[in-house]
Amino acid sequence: MMIMEEGIKKRILKAKDTIKIKVRFNDTDAMGVVHFKNYLVYFDDGFVAFMRAIENPVESAVKSGIVFPVKKIDITYEESATFGDYIIVETSIKELGEKSITFLHKIFRESDNALLVNVECVRLVMDLNSKELLNVAKFFAEFL
Amino acid sequence: MMIMEEGIKKRILKAKDTIKIKVRFNDTDAMGVVHFKNYLVYFDDGFVAFMRAIENPVESAVKSGIVFPVKKIDITYEESATFGDYIIVETSIKELGEKSITFLHKIFRESDNALLVNVECVRLVMDLNSKELLNVAKFFAEFL
Amino acid sequence: MMIMEEGIKKRILKAKDTIKIKVRFNDTDAMGVVHFKNYLVYFDDGFVAFMRAIENPVESAVKSGIVFPVKKIDITYEESATFGDYIIVETSIKELGEKSITFLHKIFRESDNALLVNVECVRLVMDLNSKELLNVAKFFAEFL
Amino acid sequence: MMIMEEGIKKRILKAKDTIKIKVRFNDTDAMGVVHFKNYLVYFDDGFVAFMRAIENPVESAVKSGIVFPVKKIDITYEESATFGDYIIVETSIKELGEKSITFLHKIFRESDNALLVNVECVRLVMDLNSKELLNVAKFFAEFL
Repeated sequence: MMIMEEGIKKRILKAKDTIKIKVRFNDTDAMGVVHFKNYLVYFDDGFVAFMRAIENPVESAVKSGIVFPVKKIDITYEESATFGDYIIVETSIKELGEKSITFLHKIFRESDNALLVNVECVRLVMDLNSKELLNVAKFFAEFL
Repeated sequence: MMIMEEGIKKRILKAKDTIKIKVRFNDTDAMGVVHFKNYLVYFDDGFVAFMRAIENPVESAVKSGIVFPVKKIDITYEESATFGDYIIVETSIKELGEKSITFLHKIFRESDNALLVNVECVRLVMDLNSKELLNVAKFFAEFL
Repeated sequence: MMIMEEGIKKRILKAKDTIKIKVRFNDTDAMGVVHFKNYLVYFDDGFVAFMRAIENPVESAVKSGIVFPVKKIDITYEESATFGDYIIVETSIKELGEKSITFLHKIFRESDNALLVNVECVRLVMDLNSKELLNVAKFFAEFL
Repeated sequence: MMIMEEGIKKRILKAKDTIKIKVRFNDTDAMGVVHFKNYLVYFDDGFVAFMRAIENPVESAVKSGIVFPVKKIDITYEESATFGDYIIVETSIKELGEKSITFLHKIFRESDNALLVNVECVRLVMDLNSKELLNVAKFFAEFL
């Protein structure tokens, strides 16, 4: 098993990235607020931005056939966003497994800083052609 | 240029297919009705069902690398559907071009038969690998 | 605190409902399989069907201003569905809390019965006008 | 019938606004490119941004119960965007009717300036409470 170099590991685990997203009208539903499935879209944006921030752009990975399938999501809904709100997605990594990466995403409403949604999301790293899972340490070693 | 056999052409132009779809809560937006983009999803279902009805399943085509990119849509909105409504999508073909097929879709609310949306949608037939457009007559000759 | 009548409680906890959904082309993403957020749409369909099966149609509740906000989702992804697949959503209730209902949803691929997704989803019952949470026992007593 | 003040009319008809949007992974479908329905989401963003640019924020209108239902869309697809692309939505008004506004949206890929989609979209102005259509001149007179 490949071990991740300690310096890289520390750097990744300390990284934090935040992005701002504007809620679209079509993100809402007839309850007048954002439909619960759309927070998955928001934190997926957070994931992409985070990877770019640690110099690991998802877009390049995808072009070279590497994707990041979601294995598990735990999501808790605290408050709702609505059309026109700006929301903040704060992303960090909780844990680097051998074959998985556990991301934390916190989504806030910008206007009053209220926590809307709390997410723990486990992702794998997969070669889309061979459908094989990649070793996380190896993936970061090659791409960082 | 390949000419479509008259019998097949007549049969395709006379074909009509209807499907029923239930409106989901997340199809609605904060106006309380179905968001305008979602009627494209509904008539796309109508397209898939129509092709199956003329024994030309889109699923098989896609598996063999043939797709049906949308070139043009004219859509007029008359009335709105809301959560829990059953809607009827009625699909037929208006015109078979050399490289395009023009579909007509009418979407009705089942409860009172009100016309909700009127669509004319031009689709191409494309080989996903070569990105080349296929001749429509040839496509139907091979697949029907 | 209102206590739920034992007969009703038993009946609800024993109820199980299954629905069949056809995967749409636009449910997929560039990985060629259903995007992870869309399983939330599928099990939301399962929730609506389950409530109808226990004679508690969500559509009527919504019309009278009662909605079922999602509080928490734990979802594990095992395998993927793709365009044209039929999937089965099996829904039951795990727990009836004072102010929450915990649903279990299992999503299977119909062709080979493979488990795709496992979901535990906590929902509240809310009066949309007053924004107040309703007592679950009271809600079922009035609506069943 | 109310006539729009010429100065306002000229200003509105000369206004042009552009926004930049990043294509999300979940905007794509199994063809590897953006699903055709999602361009409606993109030009809807363009509409919202345009209205803000002419000092007529849709968010405030919606809060005061005024919405902009889509009556008609003509959309032509030229080329496709894919994950990671930045797209530019250019919005202007073609025509101010008594009860309708005709918007033009052109969507470009930023990297090579290729035209992806051409849209003409007719919108109404509606009071969500009374469900009545508003006079466009009156609407702009009050809100500008």
